[in-house]
Amino acid sequence: MGTIGPTTTIDLSEMYIVRKTYEDKAQKYIRMHGSLNFGGGGSFYDVFYVYKNFGFMPESAYQGLNYGQPAHNHHEMDAVLKAYVDALKDEDILTTAWFNGFKGILDAYLGAVPDNFAYKGKTYTPRTFADEVVKINPDDYINITSFTHHPFYSKFAIEVPDNWLWGQAYNVTMDELVEIADNAIKNGYTIAWGADVSEVYFSHRIGVAVVPDLDIQELVVTERSRWEKVDNSKYNLDMPRTEKVITQDMRQTSFDNFKTTDDHGLHIVGLAKDQNGTEYYIVKNSWNTDNPYDGYVYVSKAFFKFKTMNFVVHKDAIPAGIKTKLKI
Amino acid sequence: MGTIGPTTTIDLSEMYIVRKTYEDKAQKYIRMHGSLNFGGGGSFYDVFYVYKNFGFMPESAYQGLNYGQPAHNHHEMDAVLKAYVDALKDEDILTTAWFNGFKGILDAYLGAVPDNFAYKGKTYTPRTFADEVVKINPDDYINITSFTHHPFYSKFAIEVPDNWLWGQAYNVTMDELVEIADNAIKNGYTIAWGADVSEVYFSHRIGVAVVPDLDIQELVVTERSRWEKVDNSKYNLDMPRTEKVITQDMRQTSFDNFKTTDDHGLHIVGLAKDQNGTEYYIVKNSWNTDNPYDGYVYVSKAFFKFKTMNFVVHKDAIPAGIKTKLKI
Amino acid sequence: MGTIGPTTTIDLSEMYIVRKTYEDKAQKYIRMHGSLNFGGGGSFYDVFYVYKNFGFMPESAYQGLNYGQPAHNHHEMDAVLKAYVDALKDEDILTTAWFNGFKGILDAYLGAVPDNFAYKGKTYTPRTFADEVVKINPDDYINITSFTHHPFYSKFAIEVPDNWLWGQAYNVTMDELVEIADNAIKNGYTIAWGADVSEVYFSHRIGVAVVPDLDIQELVVTERSRWEKVDNSKYNLDMPRTEKVITQDMRQTSFDNFKTTDDHGLHIVGLAKDQNGTEYYIVKNSWNTDNPYDGYVYVSKAFFKFKTMNFVVHKDAIPAGIKTKLKI
Amino acid sequence: MGTIGPTTTIDLSEMYIVRKTYEDKAQKYIRMHGSLNFGGGGSFYDVFYVYKNFGFMPESAYQGLNYGQPAHNHHEMDAVLKAYVDALKDEDILTTAWFNGFKGILDAYLGAVPDNFAYKGKTYTPRTFADEVVKINPDDYINITSFTHHPFYSKFAIEVPDNWLWGQAYNVTMDELVEIADNAIKNGYTIAWGADVSEVYFSHRIGVAVVPDLDIQELVVTERSRWEKVDNSKYNLDMPRTEKVITQDMRQTSFDNFKTTDDHGLHIVGLAKDQNGTEYYIVKNSWNTDNPYDGYVYVSKAFFKFKTMNFVVHKDAIPAGIKTKLKI
Amino acid sequence: MGTIGPTTTIDLSEMYIVRKTYEDKAQKYIRMHGSLNFGGGGSFYDVFYVYKNFGFMPESAYQGLNYGQPAHNHHEMDAVLKAYVDALKDEDILTTAWFNGFKGILDAYLGAVPDNFAYKGKTYTPRTFADEVVKINPDDYINITSFTHHPFYSKFAIEVPDNWLWGQAYNVTMDELVEIADNAIKNGYTIAWGADVSEVYFSHRIGVAVVPDLDIQELVVTERSRWEKVDNSKYNLDMPRTEKVITQDMRQTSFDNFKTTDDHGLHIVGLAKDQNGTEYYIVKNSWNTDNPYDGYVYVSKAFFKFKTMNFVVHKDAIPAGIKTKLKI
Amino acid sequence: MGTIGPTTTIDLSEMYIVRKTYEDKAQKYIRMHGSLNFGGGGSFYDVFYVYKNFGFMPESAYQGLNYGQPAHNHHEMDAVLKAYVDALKDEDILTTAWFNGFKGILDAYLGAVPDNFAYKGKTYTPRTFADEVVKINPDDYINITSFTHHPFYSKFAIEVPDNWLWGQAYNVTMDELVEIADNAIKNGYTIAWGADVSEVYFSHRIGVAVVPDLDIQELVVTERSRWEKVDNSKYNLDMPRTEKVITQDMRQTSFDNFKTTDDHGLHIVGLAKDQNGTEYYIVKNSWNTDNPYDGYVYVSKAFFKFKTMNFVVHKDAIPAGIKTKLKI
Repeated sequence: MGTIGPTTTIDLSEMYIVRKTYEDKAQKYIRMHGSLNFGGGGSFYDVFYVYKNFGFMPESAYQGLNYGQPAHNHHEMDAVLKAYVDALKDEDILTTAWFNGFKGILDAYLGAVPDNFAYKGKTYTPRTFADEVVKINPDDYINITSFTHHPFYSKFAIEVPDNWLWGQAYNVTMDELVEIADNAIKNGYTIAWGADVSEVYFSHRIGVAVVPDLDIQELVVTERSRWEKVDNSKYNLDMPRTEKVITQDMRQTSFDNFKTTDDHGLHIVGLAKDQNGTEYYIVKNSWNTDNPYDGYVYVSKAFFKFKTMNFVVHKDAIPAGIKTKLKI
Repeated sequence: MGTIGPTTTIDLSEMYIVRKTYEDKAQKYIRMHGSLNFGGGGSFYDVFYVYKNFGFMPESAYQGLNYGQPAHNHHEMDAVLKAYVDALKDEDILTTAWFNGFKGILDAYLGAVPDNFAYKGKTYTPRTFADEVVKINPDDYINITSFTHHPFYSKFAIEVPDNWLWGQAYNVTMDELVEIADNAIKNGYTIAWGADVSEVYFSHRIGVAVVPDLDIQELVVTERSRWEKVDNSKYNLDMPRTEKVITQDMRQTSFDNFKTTDDHGLHIVGLAKDQNGTEYYIVKNSWNTDNPYDGYVYVSKAFFKFKTMNFVVHKDAIPAGIKTKLKI
Repeated sequence: MGTIGPTTTIDLSEMYIVRKTYEDKAQKYIRMHGSLNFGGGGSFYDVFYVYKNFGFMPESAYQGLNYGQPAHNHHEMDAVLKAYVDALKDEDILTTAWFNGFKGILDAYLGAVPDNFAYKGKTYTPRTFADEVVKINPDDYINITSFTHHPFYSKFAIEVPDNWLWGQAYNVTMDELVEIADNAIKNGYTIAWGADVSEVYFSHRIGVAVVPDLDIQELVVTERSRWEKVDNSKYNLDMPRTEKVITQDMRQTSFDNFKTTDDHGLHIVGLAKDQNGTEYYIVKNSWNTDNPYDGYVYVSKAFFKFKTMNFVVHKDAIPAGIKTKLKI
Repeated sequence: MGTIGPTTTIDLSEMYIVRKTYEDKAQKYIRMHGSLNFGGGGSFYDVFYVYKNFGFMPESAYQGLNYGQPAHNHHEMDAVLKAYVDALKDEDILTTAWFNGFKGILDAYLGAVPDNFAYKGKTYTPRTFADEVVKINPDDYINITSFTHHPFYSKFAIEVPDNWLWGQAYNVTMDELVEIADNAIKNGYTIAWGADVSEVYFSHRIGVAVVPDLDIQELVVTERSRWEKVDNSKYNLDMPRTEKVITQDMRQTSFDNFKTTDDHGLHIVGLAKDQNGTEYYIVKNSWNTDNPYDGYVYVSKAFFKFKTMNFVVHKDAIPAGIKTKLKI
Repeated sequence: MGTIGPTTTIDLSEMYIVRKTYEDKAQKYIRMHGSLNFGGGGSFYDVFYVYKNFGFMPESAYQGLNYGQPAHNHHEMDAVLKAYVDALKDEDILTTAWFNGFKGILDAYLGAVPDNFAYKGKTYTPRTFADEVVKINPDDYINITSFTHHPFYSKFAIEVPDNWLWGQAYNVTMDELVEIADNAIKNGYTIAWGADVSEVYFSHRIGVAVVPDLDIQELVVTERSRWEKVDNSKYNLDMPRTEKVITQDMRQTSFDNFKTTDDHGLHIVGLAKDQNGTEYYIVKNSWNTDNPYDGYVYVSKAFFKFKTMNFVVHKDAIPAGIKTKLKI
Repeated sequence: MGTIGPTTTIDLSEMYIVRKTYEDKAQKYIRMHGSLNFGGGGSFYDVFYVYKNFGFMPESAYQGLNYGQPAHNHHEMDAVLKAYVDALKDEDILTTAWFNGFKGILDAYLGAVPDNFAYKGKTYTPRTFADEVVKINPDDYINITSFTHHPFYSKFAIEVPDNWLWGQAYNVTMDELVEIADNAIKNGYTIAWGADVSEVYFSHRIGVAVVPDLDIQELVVTERSRWEKVDNSKYNLDMPRTEKVITQDMRQTSFDNFKTTDDHGLHIVGLAKDQNGTEYYIVKNSWNTDNPYDGYVYVSKAFFKFKTMNFVVHKDAIPAGIKTKLKI
């Protein structure tokens, strides 16, 4: 997940969040006897959940990189953690030792979590650091989505595997999704955006995400293709171009049939318009800064409507009319 | 699950609830790519969930027994439904046909659900039957539990596999659990009770459930037992006898180590006292009526404290003081 | 499988045949407790089997495309059907509901089969449509093959997985295979040809299938190739060229060692000769029409001898001498 | 399988039949890429198939017991043979060595088959031994069954896993099944009987097989039985007693739902009547001779009608009227 | 494994040996990519290996019982350790963190190993405790076995899964096995005995192990036994009785065919003779002391010859003649 | 494995070694119940082991190619042998037939081993051929390695899967590894070299193996790379170039983290120096002769230090000082 949460100049420890999330996910996975997604992935809820329950740490106090390699690569750690909980989930009776063993693995790969640490000359615990330095109110941040398999203006837990916390989002119409985002940006709030970025028409390299008005040929397994290579015409992304008109229905169908997936967290920081008047969100992507826009991606509103899984925004950024409907 | 819900003389169709539950469980299982428990089991939430979303049907209109056998035996149906959703959950893209196919299987095993049906000379849909004949308000029914891994007087989704709905329960202290139950029975309300009945000291045959003050020898896999049969003294249940004093801690540990499980739904209908003054709940069990108490079981308060997973009760049955703490 | 059966201008429903085949295959698979091939594939027998047992339908009455996609793509349906029968095949005792559930899935993916339908202003059932409109006699069509692991001029069930019907073919010599095919074409009969088309020297794109007199280097897993990319010279198909002389023995060996497989059904409609006098069968392939010969492929007699699994032809197309040997 | 075939005093080698059967079954299993039952079991067809294709050997020339144990116990041999063919069935291309390796395993466990052998002072091959000493005509033996999922008086391959040969049986009515058996015994022919002997009312120990007119409680997995031992009343077999009236439909249902299985081959040698006039077939069972009737079992006609899978009898033993219907 | 090593009154920590063994076994298992037995079992080598490489600890300093249960029960710990190494063994590249994670699990279940500890008023490390308190020379202890698949008087690693250390034993004749054992006991040395105790004629309960001269009927899976319960005569152990004469060949065959297994470690402490002059070893068994001989078992020499896997004894206990042959 | 052993002009049968190795490996794998690597791979030990225990055969007497193909391709044979032993390894009790069955498979794929054979006009057994014609003393050949997880100048069994024989190597320092190799070549001895050749900087095609002083970017699975193709700069091998300075530590780490693997056996026959004075071993590789040096590869000393698993050399080729340390 990319950078999320409030625009802050504090360099927070992502690995602290990862670690605390892993601890509680393991406990829940065990209780559910495996009927939960256990993996490295997570959601925006995780951040607020950790803040609320454990506090935060600065990057300087917890790098979480203890396994002899210069960069994070969680493959091996994820594999042993999963193997560990899977060996336990169907036991008849559990010891009280297992959770300490789990933390022992985390200590080995990420380093032990210190009880307290120095930050700018003062000593903190994760709790006091959160409350006195970071100082956000997690209850101020509202999770928004838009799907028709639940009633609008109610809350529901989005049914995606990474939502292991069963955290709930407010359900609004697709147009209100845009209305809230626009309102937020215009009032100086940024948005933690959960989106499907695995579509060919999202390109970090080019720095653009649009929904071109073309039929994108899905790979079709025909009888012939079993014996002969069939030439699938490639899809080329360039712009400006005409985009599809996205409807609530298209959005829902794409979620229902697994095309819209819960891929990635990005950070919406601004609004822009191209020479044709098409509006884009300016989105900060954590991947790297080697694209034409120093790592930012221009996301058209069509793409935003079509491929937003959910977003988290400060409640003050929500227009008053929608707030009323949501009873916030 | 045994009889639940309001004390009513209407013979409701359990299979209608099973069927609608299966439909929504399948959709959620698919969306979660399998990170959900998919099986025949369920919880009290299912009943209120179906009432709220689909309505109810009388037994006369939907027996749900369409497979050429005189009694329900869901083994085969459960097996094909699970196989069906498992074949879909990891697809890259889904058709729109799959859910109709799922309903086609349910139709074959349980019979198709009629759009409307006659009941006592009038025609109803499930919705109108619920609203006009059954007439309960599902929001009046409150789910209560007591565990220490979440704060008291908050709500949380109990982490057991059958809670596929992620339905939330109010968390109270163990003593308040008893206080609420007593208050309900004394005021004429019955209780839908979710309990662990797989302990050797719950006996439907004898009609008694107590927590004897004995060390019940767990089967210990010693080195010797691998080569020679070791005689494990059997545990005999008789009464009256001294019971263990149950603490909140014992209750929690038993849940944490998988000893307290989410087995079965029963119906608490009364209170009783034996010659020693020990108090029992009188509990209707759906298994059969061939035990000394016509199918009822006397459940001691020690057992109730120790082995209650949760219960559902009308909100008016909750003592005012607890209601205030729960902000109901 | 491509178009087969009599040369008719009636547009028959392939999906009707697929569906009825699936129904009976499921029943047989269940009875055999899984010792049968259950999948989307089939053979020419299926067509005549369906005609005989259920009749036919026109394409207009049964498109068999009910899952929200513009083209047939059976992957998902095949997966759920296989999962369904696999969940049943090892049961101790079966209900009578399972087959209705199976048909419920087929109804969802292909649409229900109507009891009767209109065709050119008249109403038919599949049976009457077959008997009154299509009007073939399935017993007139003879299945021919040529292998040495059974005696010539006897019948045997070709041992390939798709022959789930255990349908029998007449066994003739390789030269008689050609003699029958030539006689058929010369007398105006076409041939439903089952062939191995997965060889590199069958090219729909080029429109040619020959057996070049070259050693086609099989991919050899040498010790070196495990560590370094080994350059395997590519095989280029051009013509005219010298072909291998095919013997009965080469044909048998290629079947015995899995090189000749039961891939595909095509339609032999004519004979041709190139500038060198090499004879070819003109073969209609269902893949598409984008090759140099509008979708037809020129198949040399060497290829035909080497790679024919079997073919089906009208019995009147068989030379009298061979008929006598076969006691037809 | 018990003793079958003509009443002869020649002690034939069962292991020779087992061995030749295994060889051809392996070849067919490989060609079918595993879509065939490969195991130690077989059917009456195997005997005639081996006679016809390879001949017979006397027990004295081929005991087939070469693995250092005093009695046959095929478990280990079956396991390695199955593992061997499973390692081959999905290869892309096969060597010519595999079948010799398969025979090498059979040689190790059963002993090599000699090219020729002495019998009563003369030298024979399996072929000449069959033709000159055993002297049966396999085509004289007719396989009879009775099911409604195929037309009566036609032939079909009974769909049971052990019928790996896809051998065909003549289909007659249930009453004709009895008529043929009675006619055979009365005319001095014996019958090779394939029957379901896993019912509780077939008892070799007691020497009786009947179909008592009782409801035999199937083990029902009720919710209660998951937590408490439920007492299932035992079924006691004694006689004489009233039997159920068996219909063609009951017979078919029992086959369709897996209750009638293809268990065992026995030898019907006579007819008997008890004090109530109930008729029984006198059946020789190969298990042992320690029951009240020296190893024979009295099988009532009700049992015979209900639980006969098929039987093989000399064609001269079939009544003329049935022969005409079967076009024999 | 029971008590082994020198007769000492020091209460040594078994769990320290278990733990250090697990650490090195994990490293070797990983290097071998799983081609090693990884489990709780071990051999006498482990003890000397740990002594030599890490030292020893007294029980008082390391109970190794840290998981909230009153007695050792390694099932859960074994399961998570195995899952952990299995998740690593096929990685392409390993981090340096994994071994610390492994030790973290051991710390959780067994407790951390202190760098040093107090014993009788002095402070030791495991190394100094071994060298200064226990004071044995591991190289003085010789491992003896007797099998014919390696030359006598050479050393080889006994091929049993628990020999993960690939530790070597001296190979002597079966009679020399007895000669060494007798010599040791007569000279005041005790013997660490590795034996097969899973035979029905080893009974800790009765306190006797003999090889009765009876044919012990192996469970034979006959065709009949698949359908009817076959009565297998039970074997009764009483004494005195005639024993079988054991040969080197019987001993070898029993090892070759998996009947003699590497079950258990016991402690031979004396010699005895019964009224018939039959000689027995007096053997201390760690199981418990509730049998007629306070937990000791009388093991006949026939049993010792037949079922000894190996034993460890001080080199001074070996007769000079055998020492010469072994070049010790 | 390539050619190894003494420089001899006798064309020895590699397949004889493979076969005898397979036989003993099967027996050990069975005894170890699968806790051993069973596959086609092996090590230098195998050659000396076979010489010592069974003798050798000339290629002319045992080609070991009996499966109808012009070149060795062990895939199918390996698969059936593995399947065979896996079917046995967990049996409760084994027959004595299994090993003959195993040899039956080897006979089928490789041909039977003759008891004796003619070589240059004389008749030999494998034993006499080894002793009288090949005439080496296997005990003269010393296995050398260099790792720090065992003490230097001791012997240990290198923990790699192919070392199924648990054969031991002498442990020297990395510099001594070079010292011995240089001494051997300079004194006319060649070296059987076990090396890791799967590094990109070993190129048979170019004929060079070096350790360039570049950071070779490992494929890193970053979050971005899951959604977009990340361009990994390719590594180009050319020379002369600066090489890394290899330390004992680098060598150990590369073994510990699975980067140095036990890939391949080659034959060091000479020494060379390039224009910069960098020294190389001239190494004969069995792959083929199509590279610039007729199949030889120039291996720098840096590569040799870094990627040598072990080597085998005549003991007279070891410098006297090292011999003393090793107590040879």
